[in-house]
Amino acid sequence: MGVTRFQVAVSLDGYIAGPRQSQSEPLGEGGERLHDWMTPLEAWRRQHEGYAGGTATPSTPVLEEVQANIGAVVMGRNMFGGGPGPWKDTSWRGWWGENPPFHTPVYVVTHHARPSAEMEGGTTFHFVTDGVDAAIQAARDTAGERDVLISGGANVIQQALALGAVDEFFLHITPLILGDGERLLVNVGDLRLRQIRGVVASNVTHLKYHVEPPERRAPS
Amino acid sequence: MGVTRFQVAVSLDGYIAGPRQSQSEPLGEGGERLHDWMTPLEAWRRQHEGYAGGTATPSTPVLEEVQANIGAVVMGRNMFGGGPGPWKDTSWRGWWGENPPFHTPVYVVTHHARPSAEMEGGTTFHFVTDGVDAAIQAARDTAGERDVLISGGANVIQQALALGAVDEFFLHITPLILGDGERLLVNVGDLRLRQIRGVVASNVTHLKYHVEPPERRAPS
Repeated sequence: MGVTRFQVAVSLDGYIAGPRQSQSEPLGEGGERLHDWMTPLEAWRRQHEGYAGGTATPSTPVLEEVQANIGAVVMGRNMFGGGPGPWKDTSWRGWWGENPPFHTPVYVVTHHARPSAEMEGGTTFHFVTDGVDAAIQAARDTAGERDVLISGGANVIQQALALGAVDEFFLHITPLILGDGERLLVNVGDLRLRQIRGVVASNVTHLKYHVEPPERRAPS
Repeated sequence: MGVTRFQVAVSLDGYIAGPRQSQSEPLGEGGERLHDWMTPLEAWRRQHEGYAGGTATPSTPVLEEVQANIGAVVMGRNMFGGGPGPWKDTSWRGWWGENPPFHTPVYVVTHHARPSAEMEGGTTFHFVTDGVDAAIQAARDTAGERDVLISGGANVIQQALALGAVDEFFLHITPLILGDGERLLVNVGDLRLRQIRGVVASNVTHLKYHVEPPERRAPS
C-alpha cells in the first residue's frame, strides 16, 4: 500500500490562502506569494502548461519528492473551482487547462454530482458526493501501491487529518504574514506528529511530519 | 546599537501556550511540551537553578546564540506572573527563584506600579506602566551595544511587532498541535519578513527571520 499524504505552502501565521478568495484570485489577496519559492523551479514549470525554463534550488528535490509516486489525488470542490453550489454547467473543467498537471484520477469532493471529466494526459476528474472518507477510499483503491495525494483545500485536509486518514505531510513554511484567510491546522483533532525531515531553502523551509498512531492508554 | 529581538517555541498550529493557563500550568494544558527540545540541553540546564547535566544537540548552538549578548529583557505581566490585576503583595518575584536566568535588567510591562526588585545574579525587575514602546525604549537605553530580548508573552511580542520595534526573531517550530491557547502571529500588522537562517534539529526546527523595513512606495 502507498501512503496518504498532503503537501501545502503555508504562511508563517498558518494560512494556505489569503482573505477574499475569488475566481481571479483563487488563493485570496496576497496568497499567490505562497508559491514564490516554487514557480521559478524548472521542476514545477515543466509540469505546468504554458511555462518553460526555470532554475534548481534546494527546494527542487522536495518538489520532486512530493510529485513522485502519486497514484490518485483527492481535492475539495473549492480547489477544483467553478463557483459554489450546484454546477451551472459542466463546461468548467478546473483551473489547469486541457492537460492538468495530475496525470492520475482526481477525486473531487462535492455535494453536487456530475459526470466524470476525462482530460488530456491521464487526468480524469471524478465527483464524489459521499464525503472525504469515501473519496480517500476510492483514491486508495485506485492508487494501490502508489500514494494518495490530498491536494487541498484546507477543509478537505482538515477532515482527512481529523479522520486519521493522513500518514504524512510536507509543509512549505514561507516568510509571509497573511493576517487572514484559510487557516490550515484548525479542527484537526488530537494529532501526534513526528518531524521526519527538514530542508532549509531560500526564503522557505520544507518540513515533513509523520502522523503517529494514537497513544495507547495504560490498561485500567 | 544592538538589535531588538525575540525567540519563542511555537506549536505547528501557531500557539506559544496551550489553553487554560494557570499558576500551576503557566504554559497552559500541553504547553510544557513546547520546550521538550530545550530542557534536556546542557546549555539550558546550566542557566537554570536546580538543573544539572544535560546533552548537546543541533539545537545547542541556537540556544547559545539566542542567549548571547543580551543587555536587557522586556516581558509582559502574565509572563512575570503573580496573577492578574493589582499586586496583592510584592512577595511574588517571578517564576524563577532568587537567581533568575536573565542576569540583566528586566522591564515588566504592567498596568500596576511597584518598586523594582533586585534579585541575585544581576537580574533586576523594573515595572513599566506606560506601555510596550516605553519598556522597549528603556531596555534599549540600558542595553546599549547589546541586544534587547523581548521575552514574551504573545501580547507583548505582538505589540512590539506591530510597532515595528522588532529587528529579528527565532521561532522554534515544534511538532505539536495544541488546538487552542495563545496564538503568536495575530494582530502584528503588515510585516515583511526574510528567512535568514534555519536549523533542522531533532523534532524541532529553528527558523530565524529578519523584519524588513516597510516597502517604499513610488513617489506620486
